[in-house]
Amino acid sequence: MAARPALANHKGDVVVLFGDTPLLKPATIAATQAALTQSDVVAVGFEARDPSGYGRILRDARGQVVAIREHEDATEAESTVRFCNSGVMGFRSAHVLEILDAIGSANTKAEFYLTDAVTIARKKGLSVGSVSTDETETQGVNDRAQLAAVEADYQARKRAEIMAGGTTLIAPETVFFSCDTEVGQDVVIEPFVVFGPGVTVGNNVIIRAFTHIVGADRKVTTGAKIAEGVELGPFSRLRPGAEVGKGVHVGNFVEVKNAVLEAGAKVNHLTYIGDARVGAGANIGAGTITCNYDGFNKHHTDIGAGAFIGSNSALVAPVKIGDGAIIGAGTVVTKDVAADALALTRAPQEERPGWAAKFRTMMARRKK
Amino acid sequence: MAARPALANHKGDVVVLFGDTPLLKPATIAATQAALTQSDVVAVGFEARDPSGYGRILRDARGQVVAIREHEDATEAESTVRFCNSGVMGFRSAHVLEILDAIGSANTKAEFYLTDAVTIARKKGLSVGSVSTDETETQGVNDRAQLAAVEADYQARKRAEIMAGGTTLIAPETVFFSCDTEVGQDVVIEPFVVFGPGVTVGNNVIIRAFTHIVGADRKVTTGAKIAEGVELGPFSRLRPGAEVGKGVHVGNFVEVKNAVLEAGAKVNHLTYIGDARVGAGANIGAGTITCNYDGFNKHHTDIGAGAFIGSNSALVAPVKIGDGAIIGAGTVVTKDVAADALALTRAPQEERPGWAAKFRTMMARRKK
Amino acid sequence: MAARPALANHKGDVVVLFGDTPLLKPATIAATQAALTQSDVVAVGFEARDPSGYGRILRDARGQVVAIREHEDATEAESTVRFCNSGVMGFRSAHVLEILDAIGSANTKAEFYLTDAVTIARKKGLSVGSVSTDETETQGVNDRAQLAAVEADYQARKRAEIMAGGTTLIAPETVFFSCDTEVGQDVVIEPFVVFGPGVTVGNNVIIRAFTHIVGADRKVTTGAKIAEGVELGPFSRLRPGAEVGKGVHVGNFVEVKNAVLEAGAKVNHLTYIGDARVGAGANIGAGTITCNYDGFNKHHTDIGAGAFIGSNSALVAPVKIGDGAIIGAGTVVTKDVAADALALTRAPQEERPGWAAKFRTMMARRKK
Repeated sequence: MAARPALANHKGDVVVLFGDTPLLKPATIAATQAALTQSDVVAVGFEARDPSGYGRILRDARGQVVAIREHEDATEAESTVRFCNSGVMGFRSAHVLEILDAIGSANTKAEFYLTDAVTIARKKGLSVGSVSTDETETQGVNDRAQLAAVEADYQARKRAEIMAGGTTLIAPETVFFSCDTEVGQDVVIEPFVVFGPGVTVGNNVIIRAFTHIVGADRKVTTGAKIAEGVELGPFSRLRPGAEVGKGVHVGNFVEVKNAVLEAGAKVNHLTYIGDARVGAGANIGAGTITCNYDGFNKHHTDIGAGAFIGSNSALVAPVKIGDGAIIGAGTVVTKDVAADALALTRAPQEERPGWAAKFRTMMARRKK
Repeated sequence: MAARPALANHKGDVVVLFGDTPLLKPATIAATQAALTQSDVVAVGFEARDPSGYGRILRDARGQVVAIREHEDATEAESTVRFCNSGVMGFRSAHVLEILDAIGSANTKAEFYLTDAVTIARKKGLSVGSVSTDETETQGVNDRAQLAAVEADYQARKRAEIMAGGTTLIAPETVFFSCDTEVGQDVVIEPFVVFGPGVTVGNNVIIRAFTHIVGADRKVTTGAKIAEGVELGPFSRLRPGAEVGKGVHVGNFVEVKNAVLEAGAKVNHLTYIGDARVGAGANIGAGTITCNYDGFNKHHTDIGAGAFIGSNSALVAPVKIGDGAIIGAGTVVTKDVAADALALTRAPQEERPGWAAKFRTMMARRKK
Repeated sequence: MAARPALANHKGDVVVLFGDTPLLKPATIAATQAALTQSDVVAVGFEARDPSGYGRILRDARGQVVAIREHEDATEAESTVRFCNSGVMGFRSAHVLEILDAIGSANTKAEFYLTDAVTIARKKGLSVGSVSTDETETQGVNDRAQLAAVEADYQARKRAEIMAGGTTLIAPETVFFSCDTEVGQDVVIEPFVVFGPGVTVGNNVIIRAFTHIVGADRKVTTGAKIAEGVELGPFSRLRPGAEVGKGVHVGNFVEVKNAVLEAGAKVNHLTYIGDARVGAGANIGAGTITCNYDGFNKHHTDIGAGAFIGSNSALVAPVKIGDGAIIGAGTVVTKDVAADALALTRAPQEERPGWAAKFRTMMARRKK
């Protein structure tokens, strides 16, 4: 009745859903609407493995619902009925308000029972049909343990779909998908992989263990796109806005955020790529950091096609590395680098002969 | 009898426990002690799902234990008894030694059976009561597979407690707790998280996948404390002595050991913070390393409130960065830095135009 | 019949196996061969938990196989038989071709049924014996979900073997082995560990969570060897050709590839060691990178015994660090370093007093 203003102006069907049954499938709602073309009211039930405790949906010989009987009120014969009430109901809007208005709270709990709608509709000479769904769809969540159980059921369903779609999961029970995860053909996913929202994976991709991919969040809605032939992980993390081109390799202890990695780029070790473009075929050495944040704003790093970034380099954004440029190991790049140039920042290597031996002797003495 | 010297001087109750039943709850031991206020001897039993193979605890009409009957010696009627012997027994210390002394080894295995205590006590006119516990509590461990099974049962129990306490576990079966892990309200824990001993987690914390937290070990007993509103992971590792203040973010591929991160500090990427303080609101850039070890001793790094450490910096301890100081990317800090100062070590950026193109030509020729 | 040329020249036994039953054990094949010393043809069966749908192996009083009866053709009496056909068959090569030649396709599916071999052999007066195997061995794989199920069964078998062999698995269901993984005594493996092919683990090793070890691939066949007393992880990755000596520690966010770590070496944090030797007792600081790749070739890094590599160093290969040498933090080593020397590349630390405060004021103004 809280929705009376909305219902008053509504012309189409009304389906009553519950906030605590997240596994209900769109197909079941569609079936309820379809049944409303035949009946004024529709009750959605399921064949219970064990009906104890559930309200039974009682039907006559023609399949019309005559009542929903609470477990404690059921006769012995009614108790043998396994078709149970999910709670979900459909109404033609023409009748919904008059039926809801007729529901009273004159019962021991002083609550308004939606199930009374069946008897009320029947008294008004309206037809009450039913739709059958799977028991798992109707599971209600009352606490965190039940939420976890429902999540587990959903994951099992999604994993089965993903495998049927042509993806190899070495250990399906260790891979967690979002409802919108899309995975291509002939993809292999190792154990221990987590997909957050907004991830699309192309064909022939390999995702190794301990990979964590979130494509979208409240700020970024473009998602993460992983193109054909990409190799990810182990220990890769992709964050919102990662666009990983054809044949790219992203390796261990690498984080990619809001960045485009163009075809064939390699970012294999201990690297942070944020707010950047990595050109086609570029090679990013181990330990490279795009320094995208100055404490106030985020800045962009542009790395040209075929560039080679030496290990342990820091690229201080905003900065542009030209196509084919080479950055020496350990360089802090603060100015743009021309295409095909070598750039480096390096103090000369000093050596102090015997210093280490003397240091050890001194430290050993101190310890005594 | 190996404990005779201890028992001889002992005044209170004696409860006999077994080293191979790690799931026995303190409440069961307390119940045994409570039962000793009514009985001279107490046998702890459990209702077995399948009693085959277990000794049965036989009780008379008043509930007094009359015997513990081995499975192979049980009559047909006795075999239907499902109340089985866990092995745990309680004794009032006044009688314990005289009962134990009376146990002989005149049986086929020439072993001393503690269960003989029941018949002996009865013969002496003593009362023998019983306490009932859950079958899972009494599981014994004989090999590593059984140890793993017992651990799995314990983890299931702990996860259920943690969820009932107000923490969301997306996939409970993938989160491993220690028996002393404490978790606050409205915490969310993603899949694949491991808690070692000594970890306390405050309210409203998010712990993302692939996070490993050990609070205490043989050397460090202060534990790891994670305050309200903290975000950890994915791929975070906290080690003993980590104290993570309110609203702190610890991100991917970050290790924190024996360090205090004050409120609002951010350590988001590829960083090692060891033996350090990170002041409130400080921002630690990607790839920062506190160089705490000189090969002989560990030294402390102190980072002031609001400091900004540029990416890929090395802070050579002992060293102090003042409040609000900024460290340029790629800097090796070997001297203290004043508050609000900028510090950096940087060779000028050299550029050699065309060098990369020539290098590639040369390498391509060599390959031929 | 596709193998006719091979069979025509073959003298020994012939065992027909199927490409979709990966769990069949070598022992079952050996048992089939052993049975061929008594019989001309051997059918391999299993006692089915639920025989519905399977062909039954019908045997006479002497144990001779008289027929393999398809489920739909079985009489009521035959349907009670639980000994079912796995499909695997053995033949003495003397008879194999004449039997196979006699198999026709005059059936509703117009297929050649290998099971017809039994009746044909019997008609020829040959003896047909049987061998019994476990049902799980004979599982066939028709899709990716069944492949995952078979993998799960295999992993359960391997984990049980590993635990029986003296290794503690905290959570066996979260550890994935290869069929060739060898693990020593008194090893402890935490949850979430993945072993690829070619890994050998010595005694008293600790492998912490989130460790990924692949010993061999198409290029490298030497495997990964982990010696006694090693500690790995959490978050370690070992790749092909890693040889980890006695008592070595490899810590978090560390990758080791084609490298020898000699006894007692420590590589504890955020490091990439590739194509290298790390001498006995050497200590590799956090954030160290061996720069092994110049864009064209891989080069070797040699680190002497007892050397100390300061944090955030880059070792540009080919390069040699002498025994006992010390490398200062943040150094880029491009020339060999003598034993017991100190080497470093470092620009002087500049400080600009008050610069950070001014910068913040300026940025704050801009934001307005």
